Amino acid sequence: MKRLFLILTAATILVLGNLSQAAERHEIAFPDLPGYKTLKCDLHMHTVFSDGYVWPTVRVDEAWRTGLDAIAISDHIEYQPFKGDVPTKHNRPYELAADRARQMDLLLIKATEITRSTPPGHFNAIFISDANPLDTESFVEAVKQANDQEAFVFWNHQALYGEENGRWQDVHTKLYDNKWLHGMEVCGGKRYYPSAHKWCLEKNLTMMGNSDIHRPDLRKKSSPEDHRTITLVFAKEKTGPALKEALREGRTAVWFKLQIIGRKELLGPLFDQCVMIEKPHLSEKEKVWVKVKNISDLDISLKRTGELGPPLLELPARSTSNLRISTETPDKPLELHYSATNFLIAPGESLDVVLLIPGKKTVAVK
Amino acid sequence: MKRLFLILTAATILVLGNLSQAAERHEIAFPDLPGYKTLKCDLHMHTVFSDGYVWPTVRVDEAWRTGLDAIAISDHIEYQPFKGDVPTKHNRPYELAADRARQMDLLLIKATEITRSTPPGHFNAIFISDANPLDTESFVEAVKQANDQEAFVFWNHQALYGEENGRWQDVHTKLYDNKWLHGMEVCGGKRYYPSAHKWCLEKNLTMMGNSDIHRPDLRKKSSPEDHRTITLVFAKEKTGPALKEALREGRTAVWFKLQIIGRKELLGPLFDQCVMIEKPHLSEKEKVWVKVKNISDLDISLKRTGELGPPLLELPARSTSNLRISTETPDKPLELHYSATNFLIAPGESLDVVLLIPGKKTVAVK
Amino acid sequence: MKRLFLILTAATILVLGNLSQAAERHEIAFPDLPGYKTLKCDLHMHTVFSDGYVWPTVRVDEAWRTGLDAIAISDHIEYQPFKGDVPTKHNRPYELAADRARQMDLLLIKATEITRSTPPGHFNAIFISDANPLDTESFVEAVKQANDQEAFVFWNHQALYGEENGRWQDVHTKLYDNKWLHGMEVCGGKRYYPSAHKWCLEKNLTMMGNSDIHRPDLRKKSSPEDHRTITLVFAKEKTGPALKEALREGRTAVWFKLQIIGRKELLGPLFDQCVMIEKPHLSEKEKVWVKVKNISDLDISLKRTGELGPPLLELPARSTSNLRISTETPDKPLELHYSATNFLIAPGESLDVVLLIPGKKTVAVK
Amino acid sequence: MKRLFLILTAATILVLGNLSQAAERHEIAFPDLPGYKTLKCDLHMHTVFSDGYVWPTVRVDEAWRTGLDAIAISDHIEYQPFKGDVPTKHNRPYELAADRARQMDLLLIKATEITRSTPPGHFNAIFISDANPLDTESFVEAVKQANDQEAFVFWNHQALYGEENGRWQDVHTKLYDNKWLHGMEVCGGKRYYPSAHKWCLEKNLTMMGNSDIHRPDLRKKSSPEDHRTITLVFAKEKTGPALKEALREGRTAVWFKLQIIGRKELLGPLFDQCVMIEKPHLSEKEKVWVKVKNISDLDISLKRTGELGPPLLELPARSTSNLRISTETPDKPLELHYSATNFLIAPGESLDVVLLIPGKKTVAVK
Repeated sequence: MKRLFLILTAATILVLGNLSQAAERHEIAFPDLPGYKTLKCDLHMHTVFSDGYVWPTVRVDEAWRTGLDAIAISDHIEYQPFKGDVPTKHNRPYELAADRARQMDLLLIKATEITRSTPPGHFNAIFISDANPLDTESFVEAVKQANDQEAFVFWNHQALYGEENGRWQDVHTKLYDNKWLHGMEVCGGKRYYPSAHKWCLEKNLTMMGNSDIHRPDLRKKSSPEDHRTITLVFAKEKTGPALKEALREGRTAVWFKLQIIGRKELLGPLFDQCVMIEKPHLSEKEKVWVKVKNISDLDISLKRTGELGPPLLELPARSTSNLRISTETPDKPLELHYSATNFLIAPGESLDVVLLIPGKKTVAVK
Repeated sequence: MKRLFLILTAATILVLGNLSQAAERHEIAFPDLPGYKTLKCDLHMHTVFSDGYVWPTVRVDEAWRTGLDAIAISDHIEYQPFKGDVPTKHNRPYELAADRARQMDLLLIKATEITRSTPPGHFNAIFISDANPLDTESFVEAVKQANDQEAFVFWNHQALYGEENGRWQDVHTKLYDNKWLHGMEVCGGKRYYPSAHKWCLEKNLTMMGNSDIHRPDLRKKSSPEDHRTITLVFAKEKTGPALKEALREGRTAVWFKLQIIGRKELLGPLFDQCVMIEKPHLSEKEKVWVKVKNISDLDISLKRTGELGPPLLELPARSTSNLRISTETPDKPLELHYSATNFLIAPGESLDVVLLIPGKKTVAVK
Repeated sequence: MKRLFLILTAATILVLGNLSQAAERHEIAFPDLPGYKTLKCDLHMHTVFSDGYVWPTVRVDEAWRTGLDAIAISDHIEYQPFKGDVPTKHNRPYELAADRARQMDLLLIKATEITRSTPPGHFNAIFISDANPLDTESFVEAVKQANDQEAFVFWNHQALYGEENGRWQDVHTKLYDNKWLHGMEVCGGKRYYPSAHKWCLEKNLTMMGNSDIHRPDLRKKSSPEDHRTITLVFAKEKTGPALKEALREGRTAVWFKLQIIGRKELLGPLFDQCVMIEKPHLSEKEKVWVKVKNISDLDISLKRTGELGPPLLELPARSTSNLRISTETPDKPLELHYSATNFLIAPGESLDVVLLIPGKKTVAVK
Repeated sequence: MKRLFLILTAATILVLGNLSQAAERHEIAFPDLPGYKTLKCDLHMHTVFSDGYVWPTVRVDEAWRTGLDAIAISDHIEYQPFKGDVPTKHNRPYELAADRARQMDLLLIKATEITRSTPPGHFNAIFISDANPLDTESFVEAVKQANDQEAFVFWNHQALYGEENGRWQDVHTKLYDNKWLHGMEVCGGKRYYPSAHKWCLEKNLTMMGNSDIHRPDLRKKSSPEDHRTITLVFAKEKTGPALKEALREGRTAVWFKLQIIGRKELLGPLFDQCVMIEKPHLSEKEKVWVKVKNISDLDISLKRTGELGPPLLELPARSTSNLRISTETPDKPLELHYSATNFLIAPGESLDVVLLIPGKKTVAVK
C-alpha cells in the first residue's frame, strides 16, 4: 500500500513535469478572409491504436507547437497491426486526447478511417459520435453509418496505389448520389492527386489536404519549406460546428509543399490578404520604387502576363520585397498583371492576379 | 573609344544584375508605442573610408535585409588607416550611399566620428551637414562645429579601453554644460557600459546602442539570438526630423543581446505592446488556462513577484505560450505580478510588470 | 476472407513505405581511444509500455538517425499509467524493437527500470534476460533477481526529488556491499547530480548519463548545442559483451549539455584524441601561427594556466582554429598549459591539459 | 604629435581586436585522391579596387572560414567604377591581402581580369608577377603579356551575355594555337555553360568553376545547399607551384550547386573516395543490410542501371545510409550498377559507378 502511494507521488511529479515541458506555439501565417477565420487543419492521422507510432496526446502536442487549429485522429477500423499489444478500442484515441486538446484550446474532431482495399479505398469519417457502428462487414454500410451520425466523409489519397486502383467506380457513384461522400484528399502526405483535384471541381466535392502522419512529427514549427500537408478551412469562427459548416460548403484550400491549391473564388481573396502593397516611396524619371509585403508562410512566385513589372517576381514568405517598376507614368496608379504560379486553381492552371500600385503625387528630386 | 563603349555596356549589365540581386527584407518585430513609430536604428558604423572593410552601399544593403529603418555611417575623421589607397573625403561615404538608401526607403543620417584618444574618447556627430569643419585640431572645437550644424552628439563606447580611460572629466562637463553632448552609448557592439547607463539616467542623456560594425554583416536577417546592438527610437513618424526630435527628447531603448535597456516610462508601454493576453479558454476547478502571445523579437523572461502564476515564465519571441494558473477564483479577472528580468531600467534593476488576465463567465464542463 | 487479404496487401505497402522512409544517420563525433571504440549509448528510456509516448521501434529509429550505437529501453516495472490500454508485458518493448535494431546495426540491450518511491529511488537493470522475476514486492529482492541474471544495475537520477530524498541509505550500502549496484547516473536528462558524481569517484561506481526520454525525440541529428545526455563507453568492440565489460570496468564518460564528465584517466586521452595540432605554418619575429583542429562534437573551452598562449581559447566543434602565440623562441617546440573548463573530472574540478606545439625550422621571410 | 600617438594606440587596439575576432574554419569535405591533395579553390573574385564591394583582406577571411585553400583576387584592369575614390593600382589588392593570407595559411594567387567587351570576353590571368604590363590597348597583347609572365589564363563566364556573344572566334583560336589560353569557366557564379564544357573536352582545356563574387560572402561555412562555385584542384601538395602544375595538367573538377562536373578519369576516383561501403551487418533470407557512408559535402544521387539495389538511391552528405538489398545470394559479394546523376562528365552525361558489396559468411539467426 505504501509502495503504491509513493509511486503515485512520483507519477504526479513526472506528469506535472511533462505538462510544464509544453513547448511554445508558432502560428502558421495565413491571414483570415473577409468574414472568415482561416483555420489550419490536419484531419487525417494515426496513433498506436492502429498503425501509428505515438500515443494520442502526442498528436495534440504536435498540433499545438506547429500552429494547427484543428485535428482529427483517424485510426483505421480494419487495420490494427499492434492489436496484440493494444487491444481494439475505436473511440479510445479521441478519449485519451480530448482533455489535452481542451487545455491547449485546439479543436479535436472525433474521427476514424474506414479502410478497405482499393478499390474502393480508404475513407475518413470525421465529426462522428461513435466509431463502433462503422466496424461492419459492408463498406457501403459503414459509410452509411457514418452519415447517420452526420459525419463529413472524404476519400483519402485516391491514387496512392496507382491511378488504376484509384479509379472512380460504381460504388463511389452510389455514395455520391446518396450525398454520403463530401470531399476528397487532393493531397495526402507528400503526394498530389490530379484526378482527385479534377473530380472535386467537376462534382463539387470539398478539397482536402492532410498529413496522414504515422510517425512522430519532428518539426518544432511549421515553415514554408517544411510543413505538413494541411487544409486551410475558411470558417465563421473557431468552433467544431463552424468548421463542419465550412467543410460542407467547400470553403477550403490545401497547403501542399510550396503550393496553395483551391477554388479560384477562394484563392483570389486569399492572395489579396497575403500581399500588402505600400504607396511608392520613390518615383524617378520613368521608374517607381514600391515595397510589397508577403505576410503569409508561402513563398509566392509570380510570372508576368502584362506589360509592367519584372518578368518574374518572387515574394518570399514573411518578408518585404522592393519593386522597381519601369513606366512612363511613374506618378499614376499602375496595374501589374501576373500569374501566381504556385496558386493552383485546377490541374495545371494558375491563378491570375493584379498588383495595384497606388499613385504618388510628389516626385523625388535627386 | 569602342573599347570604352563596350565596357560600359558590360558595366550596365553587371550593375543591373547587382540591383536585382537585392535580397528580401525581414522586419524586426518590435511594436509601435501609442502615438509613436518604433524605428530600428544603428547610428554608428564604418566603411573603407576610415577603418571599415566594406563599400558604403553595403551598409545600406545590410540595413535593408536585416530590418533596420535608419542608419548613420560614421567614419572616423582622425583615423584612416587605408588613406594611402582611399584618399580622405569626409563626406563621401554619405554621398555614395544616399541614392541606394532612397531606393530602399531607408533613412540615411549624415554623420562622422570625432576620434580622440581616451580620454576624452570617441564621439559620434549625426545629422551634420558637412563633416569637413569637424576636421580640426581642438577636440572641443570639433564638437562645437558639430553643434553649430545642429548635430546630435553622443559619446561612444565609454569604457572600451577601461573604466579609468572612460571616466567623466572636466571636458565632458564643459560639453554637457554647453548642451553640446546629448547622449551616450549604453551599449556598443558586444559590450554594455554600466557607468554610461547610470550617467544617462542622472544627467538625462539619451541612451544609445549601436553596432560600431567594421566588417561585413553576415546576417541574412535579425533574430532574437543574433542581431546587431541597435537603438529603438520612438518617433512621431519615419522621417529624419522626427528621428532627431525623438533622440533629443530621449525616447529610445537599446536592444542588446537578449535584453532591452531603457527608461522605465518607455519600457513599460513597450512591454505592454509586446505581450498580448487572450481571454482564458478553459477554467477548471481551481485552474485557468490562458494563451499569452509575445509578438516581439525578444525572448521575454519573467520572475514572479506576487502570489499567482508560475514562478518563472519564459515567453519566447514571436510565439504563443499556454499558461496554467492555479487560483481559487478561476472565473474572475486575475493580476499576475512579475519582474521582467531582461527589461533593464537601471544597472541591475528590472522592470516590474503586471499580466492582467480577463475574467471568464462560463466554466468548462468536462 | 477477401477483405483480410486485401487489407494485408495494403499493410505490406504501408510497412515497406515506412521502412524506406528511414532517414540517414549522422554520426556523433567523439573519436576512439587507443585500444577502445567509443560507443555512444543511451541506456534509459521509455515507451507506451510504461509512461512513454512512443512505440518501441521509434526508439530505434531515433537512435539510428542521431548517431547512437547502443540503447536500452527501460520501461518501469511498477509504474504503467497506460496499462488499461496497453496491458503489462515487461519483456515486450525489447521484443518489438529487436528486429529493427538488428536491421539498423544498433545494440539493443534488454532492460527494465525498478521503480520505487525515493528513497531508495529508481534503478535501471540492463543486460537482463527476463524482466518478469524483477516484478516482486521487495525492492532488494528485485535487485537481487537482476543480479542473478548478471545484469548491470545503476541508480537513476539520484536527487531528482531533492537531495534529501536522494541520500545514500543503508539499503544502498547493502546493495553495494553485495556488489549488486554498479553505477549511478551522474546526469539524467537535463540535470547533473554532484552527489552522484562524488560517490562514483569515492566508491568506484561507473558514471552514467542517459536521457530518460519519454516523449518523441525531435532531433534530426545530434549537435553540440542540442543532443541527448548520453554515456560514452570505451569498449573493446561494438558488441553487447564488450559493452558490458566496459561498463563493469568503469570505462565511461558522460556527454552532458556542453560538458564531458568522467575520470581523469579517461578524459585526458579523450581530449588528446579530440584535438589535433599541426606544425606551425608561419613563424615571425616573436610570433608563431599554428592551426588546431577540434574533430569532436564538443565546443572545447580552455583557460590558460601557464605563460604561453591566449588567456582564453575556444575550439568550436568540428572546426579549425588559428592560434597566434607570442614567444621569444618561435622556432622551438612550445608547451601551452591550459585547464579544459568543460572537461569535468570531479565536482567543480576541470582537466589540466598541455597543447604541444611542434618546432619549426624555417622562418618565413616577409 | 601627442594626438597622433594616442590615435595610433587606439588603432592598435582596434586592429588586434579584429584579428582575434577571426572566426573558426569549417573544412569542405571532399577527400583527397590517391597521390593528390584536393585543394578547394576560388580563382575569380573582386574588391573595391575594381567593382567589388569589400576590402581585399575580407576575401581572405571569407576563404578561411568557408574552407577554401586557395584564392585569386582578380580585379578588372579595364573596369574600375570606383576609381574616383580608389585610384587605380593593379597590384594593390594582392599586396594588401598577402600578409593575412600567410597568417591564415591560405594560398593567395596573384591575378587580374582582362576585361574586354564580348566577344572576345573576360579572361582571368593567374600566377602573374605584375599586372601593369597587361594594362594595354590590344587584347591579344594583354594575354601575351600574361603568358610572358608564365600565367595560367582562362576564359570567364563564356555565355554570360548570351551564347551569340560567347561564341568561339578567330581571336580565341589564335590564343589557343599559341598555347596562351589554358582553361574555361564551365561554371561562373550561379550559371553553367554547356558550350564551355564541351570545348574543354574537345580542346583539352582545364575546367574551372569560380564565384566571381563582388559582394560580401554571407556564408559562415560552406554547406551542400549553400556554397560558392569552386574548382577542386587535385595537386601534389598545397603549394602555389603544385596548384599551377595541376591546373596546367587539367586535374580539376567543379563543385557547382548540387553537382560535381569534371573529366570521367577524375570523377570516378573522386566518387570512390567519397563513398565508403561497410561489410553487410545482416543477411537474412534473400536480403542483405549494409551501411554506406558518404563522407563528402555532396548529396549524392544514384539511379539504378543494373538489376540489384533500390531504383533510386540518395546518399546525403556527411551521413550514413542503410541499404536493404534483395538478392538470392545474400552471402556473396554483390555488384550494384548505378548512374551517379549529379556527377557530370559531359553536357547531359552522368558518371557510371559500381557499388561493391563485400560478401558475408555468417547468416544472422533470428
